[in-house]
Amino acid sequence: MPQLRLLHGRAWATLLGQLRQSPRAVYLRAVHSHSQVSEAVLTSQLKPHQEKSNIIIKTPKGTRDLSPQQMVVREKILDTVVSCFKRHGAKGLDTPAFELKEMLTEKYGEDSGLIYDLKDQGGELLSLRYDLTVPFARYLAMNKLKKMKRYHVGKVWRRESPTIVQGRYREFCQCDFDIAGQFDPMIPDAECLKIICEILSGLQLGDFLIKVNDRRVLDGMFAVCGVPESKFYAICSSIDKLDKISWKDVRHEMVAKKGLAPEVADRIGDYVQCHGGVSLVEEMFQDPRISQNKQALEGLGDLKLLFEYLTLFGVAEKISFDLSLARGLDYYTGVIYEAMLLQTPAQAEEEPLNVGSVAAGGRYDGLVGMFDPKGHNVPCVGLSIGVERIFSIMEHRMKTFGEKIRTTETQVFVATPQKNFLQERLKLIAELWDAGIKAELLYKNNPKLLTQLHYCENMGIPLVVIIGEQELKEGVIKLRSVASREEVAIKRENLVAEIQKRLSES
Amino acid sequence: MPQLRLLHGRAWATLLGQLRQSPRAVYLRAVHSHSQVSEAVLTSQLKPHQEKSNIIIKTPKGTRDLSPQQMVVREKILDTVVSCFKRHGAKGLDTPAFELKEMLTEKYGEDSGLIYDLKDQGGELLSLRYDLTVPFARYLAMNKLKKMKRYHVGKVWRRESPTIVQGRYREFCQCDFDIAGQFDPMIPDAECLKIICEILSGLQLGDFLIKVNDRRVLDGMFAVCGVPESKFYAICSSIDKLDKISWKDVRHEMVAKKGLAPEVADRIGDYVQCHGGVSLVEEMFQDPRISQNKQALEGLGDLKLLFEYLTLFGVAEKISFDLSLARGLDYYTGVIYEAMLLQTPAQAEEEPLNVGSVAAGGRYDGLVGMFDPKGHNVPCVGLSIGVERIFSIMEHRMKTFGEKIRTTETQVFVATPQKNFLQERLKLIAELWDAGIKAELLYKNNPKLLTQLHYCENMGIPLVVIIGEQELKEGVIKLRSVASREEVAIKRENLVAEIQKRLSES
Repeated sequence: MPQLRLLHGRAWATLLGQLRQSPRAVYLRAVHSHSQVSEAVLTSQLKPHQEKSNIIIKTPKGTRDLSPQQMVVREKILDTVVSCFKRHGAKGLDTPAFELKEMLTEKYGEDSGLIYDLKDQGGELLSLRYDLTVPFARYLAMNKLKKMKRYHVGKVWRRESPTIVQGRYREFCQCDFDIAGQFDPMIPDAECLKIICEILSGLQLGDFLIKVNDRRVLDGMFAVCGVPESKFYAICSSIDKLDKISWKDVRHEMVAKKGLAPEVADRIGDYVQCHGGVSLVEEMFQDPRISQNKQALEGLGDLKLLFEYLTLFGVAEKISFDLSLARGLDYYTGVIYEAMLLQTPAQAEEEPLNVGSVAAGGRYDGLVGMFDPKGHNVPCVGLSIGVERIFSIMEHRMKTFGEKIRTTETQVFVATPQKNFLQERLKLIAELWDAGIKAELLYKNNPKLLTQLHYCENMGIPLVVIIGEQELKEGVIKLRSVASREEVAIKRENLVAEIQKRLSES
Repeated sequence: MPQLRLLHGRAWATLLGQLRQSPRAVYLRAVHSHSQVSEAVLTSQLKPHQEKSNIIIKTPKGTRDLSPQQMVVREKILDTVVSCFKRHGAKGLDTPAFELKEMLTEKYGEDSGLIYDLKDQGGELLSLRYDLTVPFARYLAMNKLKKMKRYHVGKVWRRESPTIVQGRYREFCQCDFDIAGQFDPMIPDAECLKIICEILSGLQLGDFLIKVNDRRVLDGMFAVCGVPESKFYAICSSIDKLDKISWKDVRHEMVAKKGLAPEVADRIGDYVQCHGGVSLVEEMFQDPRISQNKQALEGLGDLKLLFEYLTLFGVAEKISFDLSLARGLDYYTGVIYEAMLLQTPAQAEEEPLNVGSVAAGGRYDGLVGMFDPKGHNVPCVGLSIGVERIFSIMEHRMKTFGEKIRTTETQVFVATPQKNFLQERLKLIAELWDAGIKAELLYKNNPKLLTQLHYCENMGIPLVVIIGEQELKEGVIKLRSVASREEVAIKRENLVAEIQKRLSES
């Protein structure tokens, strides 16, 4: 980038003035040259006294800033999610962003390679958390808690190849709800599915479907089809791809890459193409092969009960028993589920946004025991809302429909048409702030009235308080509605009350 | 926002002592001091089928989980802080937890050794953010923004020797508010101080004081006292200790360790013991030495204007011009401030909690320019609220006064005195959830009524809905107030309306 270096030369003198010269030694400076970046490239020099180095101003790969507009959308989503969690009696919990590296070991199977480790700077070996489930299990074991219903909203980090277009990032936010404890079967599990329904309905994302399966049914199916036990996990992760690639390709992978006998693959094929409601559960009970497997029967029994409860909750029609659902994670032991949005053909044309699953979860009865010195288990079931996916959809829609978002909540703007009125504006705005009213002014001694009114229109501020010499003399203030442009004079001492009245009415 | 120097007492002196040594010394210390786990130590075998390995179940050194009780306290604090930021028209912003390592280089002076680096796993070199100020400046430069008023609540990470008893952690939450842009002097600066006052008053932490100084006054004072320019930073950091150690000790450090001439130290001593209101600013204008320094005069002029605005805002009596305030960070260029709680003698005896500064900030007009390829500056001023400190105080008070905190928001509990009533309970609770009512039940087929009522009392749930065979026949529901134990029968179809009425009344 030779041309950019030329620019640096010119900027050099300016930078010299800005950088505070200090006697501190050079050893604190870590020099790192950088390579290929596709973003608009800005360069900067931080070391005017040494060799020049080009630094690209960007966020790390797979991460992003959330702008004020984006923050508003995200907060709206999180509000809906968290208020649903609270409606179901969950307590809040927070855990550190990083855990001792050992805490995350052997919890994620093949995905362990995606964990971010911290540099060994002396002391403990640390890793950024990969999800909120393992820290929750660690918390339960550490505090010897036998039951807890908690929610947790927080960032997690995964070193995946980012395909940002699908809302997939290396840093992303998860919203988890989990119920830990020994209870009567399927009541907490049904509540988790009810919660997913409430949230997806509440966010008005359109129609959706939750696929449900059970790890025991899956394992039983593999067993009766003749999959060797050592291949369960590998075959499971092939099956998991069925919503992305065709059965033909999955079959090829199982036979050619994973060494499964073709007739075994075909037997599996018969099952994984089945999906339906509680009638399919009944059908599987009668299936000559499946009905021979104890594990599978246990799973089917629980699924039957689950459907009964889901019917009472009024959400059974959103749920599909799907033998192809095979969530990859090691820690699931019972029911598993994954929610996806359904697009109408019209929508699919209008918004060809591939979003995949927007919520998922399942039962993991063995995870807490992995942390407990005596292996004591605490059965758990939970769900995770894929807020980033939902965020991508909402953002896309807003762009499509050109929705304008307010990024501030300012209710009142303090303006003046006169010069040298800063003092009065400051006194007035302090009065508003002290009354809890959200208020702004321009940080200028003598702003133009038009500039001030334009600001209100641009920012969507509904009310303007105008003070001038005439008003000051008469002990009044002009209150202007930005939308209607109506102005009324109000006694200074009644101003706060009048504003509060107007705001409570709107 | 500007890094919070929230240390005090002996911990401060120790840390500064460490920092003054080479980074290698700090590194070695970290290596040798990683043990000592104060938590109850649990050990676990994660590989039951392999060799046993004893693993201690804990959070990393200097970090902690926040329990549901603690989350309630923290959320209360954050609500107060964020609603104040919004009252002042700030927009939200979020940035990734880690930045490219180069972004953080040369921004923190001696504190750079405290930055957490991520392991090089291929790809970019990354570091966890150390504060929210540098990411904000990076965001402004990257997006070429010339003005922005934003707040940011987020975690930051610093590899400090944790003294947890004083509310100091390696992972902690910062709440920052900053105003970027070229405006008329001291209006945004005054608003920052007003915000600190509003927040500290709103949190009802007792009386407080905000010390104010200006980097230019400090530099000018050093110059007229005869401190060589090369020693400004070192002397600044000695001065910074004046609220923790005596002037005698500071003087000794400056003379013996930093090689300052004794008469120069004494001249400084005359100044740094001065503090007062706007009259002290006037006095300094007349000071025969200070008045010779152009930089100092600029700073004093701004401080005079600042006091004028603070008087209009009604907070001048909370502010003290203090020539000993010398916040260490490189990036400050103008006014600087630090808020501390004042304890009455009675309080100091009752709650001997050393909390030091709870908010701080200042003007940093050169930081954005460090990222800009052409060195274009965006003047900034901001503040950071030390939520962890405030959290420690609040938690301590709650323990002292034995306050009980509700960790859930559940409004209604669905109970039954009868066996085999799970189906009716599930139908009923779904009705409540769908009406937006926060409701819970026990996850048992046949819980005892007493167990159910006890749960409500323990959890502070105000209302119980009781359904039994009799009620079912009559088409009614019993609604019970937990506090008064009164029960009334309500028609099933009126239940939701009646509950909503009662909740809106309470």
